[in-house]
Amino acid sequence: MKKQNNIKVAIVMGSSSDLPVMIEAAKILKQFGIESKIDVISAHRTPKRMFDFATGADKKGYKVIIAGAGGAAHLPGMIASATTLPVIGVPIKSSNSIDGWDSILSILQMPNGVPVATVALNAAQNAGIIAAQIIALSDKAVAKKIVQHKADLEKKVMNSLKEIDKVKI
Amino acid sequence: MKKQNNIKVAIVMGSSSDLPVMIEAAKILKQFGIESKIDVISAHRTPKRMFDFATGADKKGYKVIIAGAGGAAHLPGMIASATTLPVIGVPIKSSNSIDGWDSILSILQMPNGVPVATVALNAAQNAGIIAAQIIALSDKAVAKKIVQHKADLEKKVMNSLKEIDKVKI
Amino acid sequence: MKKQNNIKVAIVMGSSSDLPVMIEAAKILKQFGIESKIDVISAHRTPKRMFDFATGADKKGYKVIIAGAGGAAHLPGMIASATTLPVIGVPIKSSNSIDGWDSILSILQMPNGVPVATVALNAAQNAGIIAAQIIALSDKAVAKKIVQHKADLEKKVMNSLKEIDKVKI
Amino acid sequence: MKKQNNIKVAIVMGSSSDLPVMIEAAKILKQFGIESKIDVISAHRTPKRMFDFATGADKKGYKVIIAGAGGAAHLPGMIASATTLPVIGVPIKSSNSIDGWDSILSILQMPNGVPVATVALNAAQNAGIIAAQIIALSDKAVAKKIVQHKADLEKKVMNSLKEIDKVKI
Amino acid sequence: MKKQNNIKVAIVMGSSSDLPVMIEAAKILKQFGIESKIDVISAHRTPKRMFDFATGADKKGYKVIIAGAGGAAHLPGMIASATTLPVIGVPIKSSNSIDGWDSILSILQMPNGVPVATVALNAAQNAGIIAAQIIALSDKAVAKKIVQHKADLEKKVMNSLKEIDKVKI
Amino acid sequence: MKKQNNIKVAIVMGSSSDLPVMIEAAKILKQFGIESKIDVISAHRTPKRMFDFATGADKKGYKVIIAGAGGAAHLPGMIASATTLPVIGVPIKSSNSIDGWDSILSILQMPNGVPVATVALNAAQNAGIIAAQIIALSDKAVAKKIVQHKADLEKKVMNSLKEIDKVKI
Amino acid sequence: MKKQNNIKVAIVMGSSSDLPVMIEAAKILKQFGIESKIDVISAHRTPKRMFDFATGADKKGYKVIIAGAGGAAHLPGMIASATTLPVIGVPIKSSNSIDGWDSILSILQMPNGVPVATVALNAAQNAGIIAAQIIALSDKAVAKKIVQHKADLEKKVMNSLKEIDKVKI
Amino acid sequence: MKKQNNIKVAIVMGSSSDLPVMIEAAKILKQFGIESKIDVISAHRTPKRMFDFATGADKKGYKVIIAGAGGAAHLPGMIASATTLPVIGVPIKSSNSIDGWDSILSILQMPNGVPVATVALNAAQNAGIIAAQIIALSDKAVAKKIVQHKADLEKKVMNSLKEIDKVKI
Repeated sequence: MKKQNNIKVAIVMGSSSDLPVMIEAAKILKQFGIESKIDVISAHRTPKRMFDFATGADKKGYKVIIAGAGGAAHLPGMIASATTLPVIGVPIKSSNSIDGWDSILSILQMPNGVPVATVALNAAQNAGIIAAQIIALSDKAVAKKIVQHKADLEKKVMNSLKEIDKVKI
Repeated sequence: MKKQNNIKVAIVMGSSSDLPVMIEAAKILKQFGIESKIDVISAHRTPKRMFDFATGADKKGYKVIIAGAGGAAHLPGMIASATTLPVIGVPIKSSNSIDGWDSILSILQMPNGVPVATVALNAAQNAGIIAAQIIALSDKAVAKKIVQHKADLEKKVMNSLKEIDKVKI
Repeated sequence: MKKQNNIKVAIVMGSSSDLPVMIEAAKILKQFGIESKIDVISAHRTPKRMFDFATGADKKGYKVIIAGAGGAAHLPGMIASATTLPVIGVPIKSSNSIDGWDSILSILQMPNGVPVATVALNAAQNAGIIAAQIIALSDKAVAKKIVQHKADLEKKVMNSLKEIDKVKI
Repeated sequence: MKKQNNIKVAIVMGSSSDLPVMIEAAKILKQFGIESKIDVISAHRTPKRMFDFATGADKKGYKVIIAGAGGAAHLPGMIASATTLPVIGVPIKSSNSIDGWDSILSILQMPNGVPVATVALNAAQNAGIIAAQIIALSDKAVAKKIVQHKADLEKKVMNSLKEIDKVKI
Repeated sequence: MKKQNNIKVAIVMGSSSDLPVMIEAAKILKQFGIESKIDVISAHRTPKRMFDFATGADKKGYKVIIAGAGGAAHLPGMIASATTLPVIGVPIKSSNSIDGWDSILSILQMPNGVPVATVALNAAQNAGIIAAQIIALSDKAVAKKIVQHKADLEKKVMNSLKEIDKVKI
Repeated sequence: MKKQNNIKVAIVMGSSSDLPVMIEAAKILKQFGIESKIDVISAHRTPKRMFDFATGADKKGYKVIIAGAGGAAHLPGMIASATTLPVIGVPIKSSNSIDGWDSILSILQMPNGVPVATVALNAAQNAGIIAAQIIALSDKAVAKKIVQHKADLEKKVMNSLKEIDKVKI
Repeated sequence: MKKQNNIKVAIVMGSSSDLPVMIEAAKILKQFGIESKIDVISAHRTPKRMFDFATGADKKGYKVIIAGAGGAAHLPGMIASATTLPVIGVPIKSSNSIDGWDSILSILQMPNGVPVATVALNAAQNAGIIAAQIIALSDKAVAKKIVQHKADLEKKVMNSLKEIDKVKI
Repeated sequence: MKKQNNIKVAIVMGSSSDLPVMIEAAKILKQFGIESKIDVISAHRTPKRMFDFATGADKKGYKVIIAGAGGAAHLPGMIASATTLPVIGVPIKSSNSIDGWDSILSILQMPNGVPVATVALNAAQNAGIIAAQIIALSDKAVAKKIVQHKADLEKKVMNSLKEIDKVKI
């Protein structure tokens, strides 16, 4: 039976429309053998639910929270205000965002004392990798998979060289 | 005896260092004969206090909330998430802000359903005037003072013409 | 017979091409039981008409003016110069706008004394909500509907959780 | 006796605090032998005066209007809406401007049909030169002085070469 | 027989791919009864031709030069360096431009002494109107047509009101 | 005797001129009882040293790397390319940076597979807090201190209220 | 038999997806009679390979290195850190780039001592031309072809005039 | 007797006020044993002189041209239009520049066919290094000095470590 405390990473987003971006975090974590739970929590439309989630995340056994949002993206920072767990923020270039600048700045520019570890625009996969790197510090199986993943990245580049060799100038 | 419910406007800011900017809202409101209460409420450092304030503001008799913040400025938007009162946001060019762009975008770009009425960078006085315009809709004394204030603005421009006439080219 | 003074909100825009954006303000106001009147008033092409509208809006019984424009968007600010009613500005990402930056800055950055309450890019719905929040201060029926709308927003998020549960990673 | 219709260029600005920038237009025009009149006209604080000025400028004998403003800089565009004279806009980096971006965009990005000829940030001197170039089309004395001014610019560069030769590396 | 000196406005552009934008200047000028000549002159690929054009434009009878370019848009400024005629610059959002910002800044930000009268991004029509406004100062027929054009703009807005009235909310 | 493997956090920066910013990471870590080692490692001037550091950091016992840099800030990303430890990047507004934009974008916008957890401009203290949050996942003493620190932040806000009460409007 | 040391220009890019942009460098070099070698070298996914390439480029007989990358584009700068050959950087507007701004700033803003000669966004052809200009300093055949290419550019403009003449206004 | 053709690098700038920035190019070149000639050539105020310089630079024996300018910075690109020598552009943050953005974009964003090798804002030293790298391809003495310079950069970093060791946290 799967127990809640085996799920180490919570992946939350402001709207279900963010799912196509945020699912990449879950996918890469799965590849690393890390269970995650995806949830939709809106800082602006479900503020109470957000605070309950953030203040209780620690006790539920989560180790890392990944939070994605777009526009005036308050979700990652507000979760960080109510937990001491590491919070990784994913700025999303949503339909109401100005080319992503608002998403980036409202996640990144947190004041002293309440940090959000921000990744590139739409880079939920990278958020998943940071979460895995954190978990790997006390989980050798994950650590090994991250090393393997890094090797795979390199292999992929090397394989792409074959395409290049076929190119006609 | 002064009662709480005579105070129609709450002026809140994320840090006491924002006071020199935000006090201008209180000053113009005073000029219009409107009492206000200044408070320091940090979305990130006192989130519970913020929510208690926002959810209770209506019952305390406030009609309008003016909220100022800088950097990843979540205070106005998070207050708006927990009240149905009109919230006026003042983006502040604080020391940790990138020329004010982060402050502006994280206040202005709120999602559908949870608006913040945003004014210009550091323009707390204008936030005060909007609050007064709202209150004036049901308070003729305030309405009269706003009309007078508009006339004064014009007079000030006309007076400055004398300086111009003295200018030598 | 419908009388003019039942219409509390004027919704004006610089061009009829702005209608698909601005109509959202009228729709949400209708949902709150507030009548509005849509008009096309160009600051640059019908300046006299604009001034007549702005100076007379108060007497026509309007309580709030919502004004949308794009590019060098002068309409909201110029209306604000000639009325003491609250003016809510909607920056529009029109075809001649540079990603909306010109629309935002020329509406938001009003000088001291003449404020425009600005909402997010294209966020006419939010302008409608602010107008409703203002009217709700003296209209309990509207106030109740705004509370309901806030609850609906939350419900919508909660409903979207079902989709999330079906997602395969 | 000096008559009004000898004054060919009106130089207007939104606030007397813009004078140190805008006076450069008057100075260069004087150097070209062109009389100008400096005035403070605020689009936002003296809108009626602005419209009276703009609609009457033609009949007063003005040939060109130079208008400077900062922040949400509506003055040049609004004057252009009410006159058929050429309007030259000077974006001013005033204290309430965001590095001048708001001033530039709200002057430059005028819609089709109502142009403002915009110069560089704070470049009132260049506004004066354009005005002179326009007047020179029907005034040979001015034309000659503009040619001379161009030669002087070149001479100034050539003179600066002497400084360069003295430089030790 | 058409003589060269009847052509009062030169419309030049850096590349024939700019023609769909720049032709709007010629069209509006034609509407005002002003002849213009369209030419492709590249500051970077035909520099000598550009200088010959710019230095000789005056003698050919041109009164105004309209120059459009995109990216590192040097054409308007370099023409201005070699003529004393008024030069109107049209920043073009060409395929190699970064959202038009490079085009705008490299045309607008000319140093003191060598101005370019800049219009909005892609706003060749407005460049044509400024040229017409300049020519109208000494040509009553043109002046009359500009007044008429302004009236037409207003009429167009008024006509669009009918569409608005049909809108269902 | 202090052993190397007690030092859990490496704090590296591109230039010793970055020290006044980066030392804040060491200070907050010290407050949390976490030893750190400060080093100057330039991606561009000591690339071999950087790679030796990055590839060996894991074996030296480091758990987290904090890397700060300004301008074309490659240090955090390049370290991330050669380690599987979590890397926290601090964009620095150094003298050669364009208002910090270059520093932020060249640290934040890492490609998929090689993340850098980025904090706000100059926010080395926040980088230290994230490092502590990560270490706290397996160190209860640190966890307790972080909880305390959060309480202190709140207390500080509450204390500032006294200043506010003394303010005269 | 083709020998490695006849290949004077190395064209490297961070990902094979950059090939459609970067191949333009190879094409123009071929037109100038200069052999080049295209390679995929990722600063972040194959850092060791990158350093081996950069430190050995000189001895392999390369004279110039052209490096293209997008997003947090570290490849050109990191190669420059490990070679004394001239490095030309091509900022690429890749899918993960924010309109190219990140690509430009992280290539252009290199610190003193480690330059990258940067070209326009996606302008790999121009990178090829700079490489050719460098090689032409000691290769008269190439020099001649560059002169011819410049003449061809002019011819192309002149030919486009025919299209213009056919245009109807 | 010093002959002109020993001077391999021309360093030109738009105004003598750019000298404090541009002299760094001459200084680093001197350190590499390369003679350079500093000149003030304004694209806008001395266009004919600029073209004469650019078209004749090749025959005077120059191998590389370094050109610095600010604002609408046309000098580097216009020189590149009239020479086949490599042109290195230095964007200068001059007093009339908008934080350097105009300088960067109007130098960097050259069209296909006419490249400028651009360095960081104010980075004249780096322009000098690129020039030296180019010359070093056929001058072993210079090549050796560049290698030495790279080693010195590394040494400087290593020396700064001593300062770091003294720091108290």
